[in-house]
Amino acid sequence: MTDIASGRREPEVTAEQFRRIMEIQPFTRWTGVELVRVERGLVETRLKLRKQDMTQHHGFLHGGLVAFLADNAAAYAAATEVGDVLTSQFSLNFLSPGVGDAFFTRAEVVKAGRRQVTVRVDVFAESEGQRKLIAIATATILPAGSAAIGRLPEAR
Amino acid sequence: MTDIASGRREPEVTAEQFRRIMEIQPFTRWTGVELVRVERGLVETRLKLRKQDMTQHHGFLHGGLVAFLADNAAAYAAATEVGDVLTSQFSLNFLSPGVGDAFFTRAEVVKAGRRQVTVRVDVFAESEGQRKLIAIATATILPAGSAAIGRLPEAR
Amino acid sequence: MTDIASGRREPEVTAEQFRRIMEIQPFTRWTGVELVRVERGLVETRLKLRKQDMTQHHGFLHGGLVAFLADNAAAYAAATEVGDVLTSQFSLNFLSPGVGDAFFTRAEVVKAGRRQVTVRVDVFAESEGQRKLIAIATATILPAGSAAIGRLPEAR
Amino acid sequence: MTDIASGRREPEVTAEQFRRIMEIQPFTRWTGVELVRVERGLVETRLKLRKQDMTQHHGFLHGGLVAFLADNAAAYAAATEVGDVLTSQFSLNFLSPGVGDAFFTRAEVVKAGRRQVTVRVDVFAESEGQRKLIAIATATILPAGSAAIGRLPEAR
Repeated sequence: MTDIASGRREPEVTAEQFRRIMEIQPFTRWTGVELVRVERGLVETRLKLRKQDMTQHHGFLHGGLVAFLADNAAAYAAATEVGDVLTSQFSLNFLSPGVGDAFFTRAEVVKAGRRQVTVRVDVFAESEGQRKLIAIATATILPAGSAAIGRLPEAR
Repeated sequence: MTDIASGRREPEVTAEQFRRIMEIQPFTRWTGVELVRVERGLVETRLKLRKQDMTQHHGFLHGGLVAFLADNAAAYAAATEVGDVLTSQFSLNFLSPGVGDAFFTRAEVVKAGRRQVTVRVDVFAESEGQRKLIAIATATILPAGSAAIGRLPEAR
Repeated sequence: MTDIASGRREPEVTAEQFRRIMEIQPFTRWTGVELVRVERGLVETRLKLRKQDMTQHHGFLHGGLVAFLADNAAAYAAATEVGDVLTSQFSLNFLSPGVGDAFFTRAEVVKAGRRQVTVRVDVFAESEGQRKLIAIATATILPAGSAAIGRLPEAR
Repeated sequence: MTDIASGRREPEVTAEQFRRIMEIQPFTRWTGVELVRVERGLVETRLKLRKQDMTQHHGFLHGGLVAFLADNAAAYAAATEVGDVLTSQFSLNFLSPGVGDAFFTRAEVVKAGRRQVTVRVDVFAESEGQRKLIAIATATILPAGSAAIGRLPEAR
């Protein structure tokens, strides 16, 4: 959808729609991850650390939740381009331990094609007002089309 | 450690030690994932699905938890070879939606070197006594040595 | 295509067809890689090392050619299931240096779906009659359908 | 090494040293890839397409050579930070077919640690003065230290 006045293309799924989807995704809701920004091709999220059930034994964010943050933001970013999606593959690199009070994730679409959407993701730890890059990822995401197995949206 | 009688090498971290580690990893404990088998170079785990907080909006296991299962089993498998580890990178391929009552994960070390351990992982959904492969992964894991940032063990 | 007598499904692309394709792929022809086995879901190839133009500075097979072997066998294996394909993504793990006189690659389809084909690959060095696993890979490959950008076959 | 006047850190391997290394890497020399820019943490290369031995059957750069470009630039970029390196893993996403007269590759170090160096790579096709992004990659590279298996430099 294109905003005629600005010429800027609107996201296929809006922040409001994502929030409704998040409400009906039990695990996503459990994490408490929040949308910070939604534009066509770009999604940013933020997760507040709960030490009692999100950490590994040093009190850092568990690597499995770093993977969740990357996967989640990547799928949402792809959905802003093509609507319903299913994640095919992602590759995640851990750079530093997840030391922080909150975690900020930015997912940007590198290319949205008819057959696949490729997304790059950065995950940052926030601590005392500073952001530190702790992980990077790349995801390959497929438009769900009519045969969606449905790992995302569709609550529209 | 080698068992002199059998010639078979014992794992560097035993099932008993892993269970103690899992107890002090809040997120791992939250998932309820259990160890099924621990040998040198091989770890199998099982996760029972809790629909109320582990699923996406279709009631399938959330992709973020598929990633957790793969990451977790891979790190444990590497630890059976080299002790303390930290995960450097993993690549995950989703094959089918996570439809099942429980999820079985098998991680096998392909090569354990002094500098890196490479592990292949299969994640299966269990439903009515049948196992179906739903995801595969490969992880690159570094021996933590003395400078461990500590994504794993060390409770030994 | 299914062989009625045996019930075994034939590959969508045969060894004979692959050989014709290889003839019109200048880089593949330059490498001299040969098909060893072609079945539905499985392709094996073999490359003889030419020290004068295939090595890095220690005389080992260059990593870029290890990547070629994995990519090439993976795409061919996927093509035996779905015909024309284009590679979306692959992840490659180097385990040991490419020390050998020849290199044997085995690519097996893990799952062939309508939207994507996932393939696992093993690359071995051959030296004095011994095979040693030197790299593993996983590839995500898309059926080309009518909109093929054409990284493979089609010479049929 | 730090340039005292500018405070800018010099690369551990210089363009001049890389050129000598490229001379003794037969496959790299065969490709004719050239260094465009070498800074600490950043390497850019350029490859001129030779249609007669670098293409697939549509006349595009073969995917195996796209992989070579990514792997090569990533290893060199890591070497500018830590000297001798060996590539552990890389993940490559193909975005568009390799249509062009030349190919430009930029590898940037995301993080250089004592145990691993993580590098992001962009590969562009050049055609009629335009650059188009055709592939992205991420590589995990290990400092070779004293136990180098030697996939790179060392000619210093």
